[in-house]
Amino acid sequence: MAALRAGIVGGSGFGGGELLRILSRHPEVRVTAVTSRRHAGRPVADVHLNLLGHVDLMFADLEADDLAKEVDVLFFALPHGEAAKRMTRVLDAAPELRIVDLSGDFRLNDVEEWERAYGREHPAGDLSGEFVYGLTEAFRDQIRQSRRVANPGCFATGAILALLPLAEEGLLDGNVAISGITGSSGSGAEPKMTTHHPERTEDFRAYRPLTHQHEPEIRLALERAGAGAGGFSPAMVPHSAPFVRGIFTTASIFPTRPLSREMIRGLYEARYGPEPFVRLREDTPRVTVVRGTNHCDVAVTADDEGKRLVVLSAIDNLVKGMAGQAVQNMNLLFDLAESAGLLDPGTHP
Amino acid sequence: MAALRAGIVGGSGFGGGELLRILSRHPEVRVTAVTSRRHAGRPVADVHLNLLGHVDLMFADLEADDLAKEVDVLFFALPHGEAAKRMTRVLDAAPELRIVDLSGDFRLNDVEEWERAYGREHPAGDLSGEFVYGLTEAFRDQIRQSRRVANPGCFATGAILALLPLAEEGLLDGNVAISGITGSSGSGAEPKMTTHHPERTEDFRAYRPLTHQHEPEIRLALERAGAGAGGFSPAMVPHSAPFVRGIFTTASIFPTRPLSREMIRGLYEARYGPEPFVRLREDTPRVTVVRGTNHCDVAVTADDEGKRLVVLSAIDNLVKGMAGQAVQNMNLLFDLAESAGLLDPGTHP
Amino acid sequence: MAALRAGIVGGSGFGGGELLRILSRHPEVRVTAVTSRRHAGRPVADVHLNLLGHVDLMFADLEADDLAKEVDVLFFALPHGEAAKRMTRVLDAAPELRIVDLSGDFRLNDVEEWERAYGREHPAGDLSGEFVYGLTEAFRDQIRQSRRVANPGCFATGAILALLPLAEEGLLDGNVAISGITGSSGSGAEPKMTTHHPERTEDFRAYRPLTHQHEPEIRLALERAGAGAGGFSPAMVPHSAPFVRGIFTTASIFPTRPLSREMIRGLYEARYGPEPFVRLREDTPRVTVVRGTNHCDVAVTADDEGKRLVVLSAIDNLVKGMAGQAVQNMNLLFDLAESAGLLDPGTHP
Amino acid sequence: MAALRAGIVGGSGFGGGELLRILSRHPEVRVTAVTSRRHAGRPVADVHLNLLGHVDLMFADLEADDLAKEVDVLFFALPHGEAAKRMTRVLDAAPELRIVDLSGDFRLNDVEEWERAYGREHPAGDLSGEFVYGLTEAFRDQIRQSRRVANPGCFATGAILALLPLAEEGLLDGNVAISGITGSSGSGAEPKMTTHHPERTEDFRAYRPLTHQHEPEIRLALERAGAGAGGFSPAMVPHSAPFVRGIFTTASIFPTRPLSREMIRGLYEARYGPEPFVRLREDTPRVTVVRGTNHCDVAVTADDEGKRLVVLSAIDNLVKGMAGQAVQNMNLLFDLAESAGLLDPGTHP
Repeated sequence: MAALRAGIVGGSGFGGGELLRILSRHPEVRVTAVTSRRHAGRPVADVHLNLLGHVDLMFADLEADDLAKEVDVLFFALPHGEAAKRMTRVLDAAPELRIVDLSGDFRLNDVEEWERAYGREHPAGDLSGEFVYGLTEAFRDQIRQSRRVANPGCFATGAILALLPLAEEGLLDGNVAISGITGSSGSGAEPKMTTHHPERTEDFRAYRPLTHQHEPEIRLALERAGAGAGGFSPAMVPHSAPFVRGIFTTASIFPTRPLSREMIRGLYEARYGPEPFVRLREDTPRVTVVRGTNHCDVAVTADDEGKRLVVLSAIDNLVKGMAGQAVQNMNLLFDLAESAGLLDPGTHP
Repeated sequence: MAALRAGIVGGSGFGGGELLRILSRHPEVRVTAVTSRRHAGRPVADVHLNLLGHVDLMFADLEADDLAKEVDVLFFALPHGEAAKRMTRVLDAAPELRIVDLSGDFRLNDVEEWERAYGREHPAGDLSGEFVYGLTEAFRDQIRQSRRVANPGCFATGAILALLPLAEEGLLDGNVAISGITGSSGSGAEPKMTTHHPERTEDFRAYRPLTHQHEPEIRLALERAGAGAGGFSPAMVPHSAPFVRGIFTTASIFPTRPLSREMIRGLYEARYGPEPFVRLREDTPRVTVVRGTNHCDVAVTADDEGKRLVVLSAIDNLVKGMAGQAVQNMNLLFDLAESAGLLDPGTHP
Repeated sequence: MAALRAGIVGGSGFGGGELLRILSRHPEVRVTAVTSRRHAGRPVADVHLNLLGHVDLMFADLEADDLAKEVDVLFFALPHGEAAKRMTRVLDAAPELRIVDLSGDFRLNDVEEWERAYGREHPAGDLSGEFVYGLTEAFRDQIRQSRRVANPGCFATGAILALLPLAEEGLLDGNVAISGITGSSGSGAEPKMTTHHPERTEDFRAYRPLTHQHEPEIRLALERAGAGAGGFSPAMVPHSAPFVRGIFTTASIFPTRPLSREMIRGLYEARYGPEPFVRLREDTPRVTVVRGTNHCDVAVTADDEGKRLVVLSAIDNLVKGMAGQAVQNMNLLFDLAESAGLLDPGTHP
Repeated sequence: MAALRAGIVGGSGFGGGELLRILSRHPEVRVTAVTSRRHAGRPVADVHLNLLGHVDLMFADLEADDLAKEVDVLFFALPHGEAAKRMTRVLDAAPELRIVDLSGDFRLNDVEEWERAYGREHPAGDLSGEFVYGLTEAFRDQIRQSRRVANPGCFATGAILALLPLAEEGLLDGNVAISGITGSSGSGAEPKMTTHHPERTEDFRAYRPLTHQHEPEIRLALERAGAGAGGFSPAMVPHSAPFVRGIFTTASIFPTRPLSREMIRGLYEARYGPEPFVRLREDTPRVTVVRGTNHCDVAVTADDEGKRLVVLSAIDNLVKGMAGQAVQNMNLLFDLAESAGLLDPGTHP
């Protein structure tokens, strides 16, 4: 079988770099074009230094809709709002094209929720219904049957995977506090004050408590999976930590009726045992242990009375929280082995 | 006035080093002796390298009860369990001596709770009632009138200061999730696997969720301050982050009746305005901003309906969470200015 | 005695923040004005977060020459080239004013060397002769007798203090390789790609090998102190390391005739014993041990034949390499105790 | 072709973990046994957490000579001195066995040099001549024709690759200063004071200047490659930096006759162009760019007169400096493609 031709729109950021790295070793895919307005004409390896000797492409200055006609699958790795602006023309140009969008533009099917969460008008609200939410483990079947995937946010991926088994069993109905901790690569490739090394190193802070745009993404996905009828409203607090890669999630759950530790552990083992990328841990997940991999590590515990539950998860925000999950979804779109190209064990330490 | 003579039992750890650093610049105190069995006879500055040229003492191999007779105040900076073993003889030798114990031995007046939390028999349970719990801002008057202070744990200091105004107003009665994040210096001066640089750097993990010994310390102190009649049971999850100094606390509160953002902010401003070491922040505390200082920075917010509150705090675990608060308590024991010796603004970055 | 009035031109950067921190605790100085065009009208503590509750000033939008009339001493903490542009008017407005310039503008008395090193025309070359080079330990007497000091660069401070005793004895005449390693705070308060946390953390790189502008600064200062007649030409390679504060210097020296380890150690002990801020170490200096302090720690060794010497030094680039040395020089300009305001032992760890 | 059977003696350290990670993806090798006395009977993934789901082996408690009979190639990943103790019996048991020893035991063919460098008697000095020094790029042909390889030290790998083209051309004859900077993983998997997170983070220090055991390793290898007739004596200073993976090398060279920048660059391009794992960089190598890979990145420059040269290199100490080079050598021992199993581009950031 000829390799699938993949294109990347916006390939100079961290998401683009990770897509290139992963796809360069994918047995069934070949990246044929990667765009970057700023770096057009330069070798990809001038920007993604680790790819020297591994990826020979140059950045192209192509419009997304032109690119759409030349590939089998198109990854959008643009900032929020930018994918939406190009999408109508892309769909016109290549209506059958498989698309995985890494931005937040099409993650919420409810446009009103989107506009509240992102604080602006949606540039292409009419297309919202065209995309399946790509949290693979939760919506695998819909993804397989679709052509267009809205790849989840990194905090959302960590939190949803922590809570999914409870939601699916209708056990997620009480108060839930979600603490999300992100590494600095989550802020992207452009220097900012919050990622200035002297400010970030050795620091820890919260940001946008209760108002982060991933909170509705988490809520809606878990409600679709079965979380509490209308009353599910997790309190999410994102934090910035002084590491580069990873999202750590701590979910503290106060169920409306007691849930024993053994029952909960059994539930997670049954649900995640068959999953290729979710690993249960006895004590705690660790971000360095999933770094560079598509794994989500999960641990779960409860107090003796079953009145307070804690679920912990760890992912690499750029892999399972971004480019890795995007490739996992692409594999489903083309009926490839779900883990093709994604079996890197990562380095530890 | 002649300087007070201070002694330190167990001065080779991080707590001892910080006591020496702070007291070396205290206008009314002189450290006259510091013990260390392992380093006896060596200059203090051989172990605490930053003190070369600042502190000229040698480590002594003295028994605590012998030292007790030669000083006005004795700091215990020993591992848990070690202070308790020596305390009876110390109190016999010098019943009027002022004591600040940095260990966890006398923090819980309820011996049963202590033995459950620490998982062993209390070596001197009969002395538990002799110590005042030294969370200065909460129990200032009792400390002033006492001779012996049990200095709080670092997680407990961060969490109690985050929740104290709510507790004192009787508003702390619903579900509360506490996420505590500690730096590596909280594990002490001895190398461990969890503080091995290749394992700790770039990592983030949880440990002892719902079972950490500071959870009862927090619960008991807040109940004494006025938290929910019997039903207050916060879910505490400690985490290890890859920074050296600091405790960050995120408290997510689901009150039994709505509490407006404005009311809560007014409450914290009124309560903490006069406090010399608690600073309110608009957005978020940061551990690098309190590093090296005795400050606790706090921020508070709520959702629009007042159904979910978030309080954030940051301290330096070795200063406000340990040696600084110990000196603050010592100042109270001797009716000195509460902030004497503690006005270092710290370095940033 | 009334406190000296100090002004700071350009107070929003790291140098300005450190000057404010140090001077806020100086017994004989009061900062009366600090300028910042960008932050004019805002409290200083809005930018230097650690100073909340410690420094009550607002940033002013004052011209340097207006400020010059209202103070006893003026610190320039502006980027290279900016101090020089203002200096003529400042000297016209207040010819007797004491000035400490933290920029590189007046560090090289030779304008041609300056223009080669900085790659542009000097904005005020005629004033170059007006400034004394402020490496305190090397040129203490000239500084005392002057009114204007060009404060040394951070790499230069570390390297000169490593080599000064050899230069003064005429023993610095062979090949010398200088490896300088800087923390990220040396790049200033503005985010850059090289200080973007995901790029800097865990990284190590060199930059501008053999072409850094501190190389002539080092060479000229050491030649003035007595280094090899014309032939002294150290090979300097600056490096960026993933820590925030500190300059570490490794000088490898191949002397033209053998120098025994004992002789060299004796030389350094004799030379640096009386110095208030230089400490000799048995094995190695460490940047965390001098962090937040005005100390320079030094160690020296040689091989058994005395054919290869190694001198190591460590400073805090923002203190001894910048604001601390500036205050040390200011103390000399006003005949104050040289260490006034500079006796902070720093925190370790 | 059936997969080669590989055994690892001492598989619980970082070297063992990296061998397992790399070989788990090697197309022609299967690890059939890995020993660890301490962890015998436990799954490998209990110790090497990243290998959960990727490597299913258990640690075995086998003697090296018993293991020798069951495999085609044996890797020794034991501490210095331990491999030598077992080697006689291993060679007796399986004289034809291919062996790659990661320790320092057989790196110096001169036993006297070895005993001086390691400060003790050699446990199997008579076997020193049996091993080829495995700096692949320098001694490829000898390795191909041998059965037993002494895998180089990490500092030695970085320094030799920096200087090899000069040595081979007979141009390495003047003074050379080598500054080596290591990450904390170089100290191994066991916690030590120098790798205690509060001591290592944010720190930088030197250690064993002019006396490190890799200095003779570098000198002997470069002399064999052609460095200066007897007079070559680099001054090597190792340093500890606060990153986990990587060796950065800065070599400052004072040649006895001028060498132009262009000539030197041409020399390096010609020499390293065909090498699969050495990449030339325009400005500077970076340790994060080679992290997780078998690459050595190199850059070279000189001053305008060609009197001072600087060569920079970066490797991952656990890959090219250890397990990766070991697999590269194994590939040569069996006439496999030299880069088999080693084409991971690593993650950046």
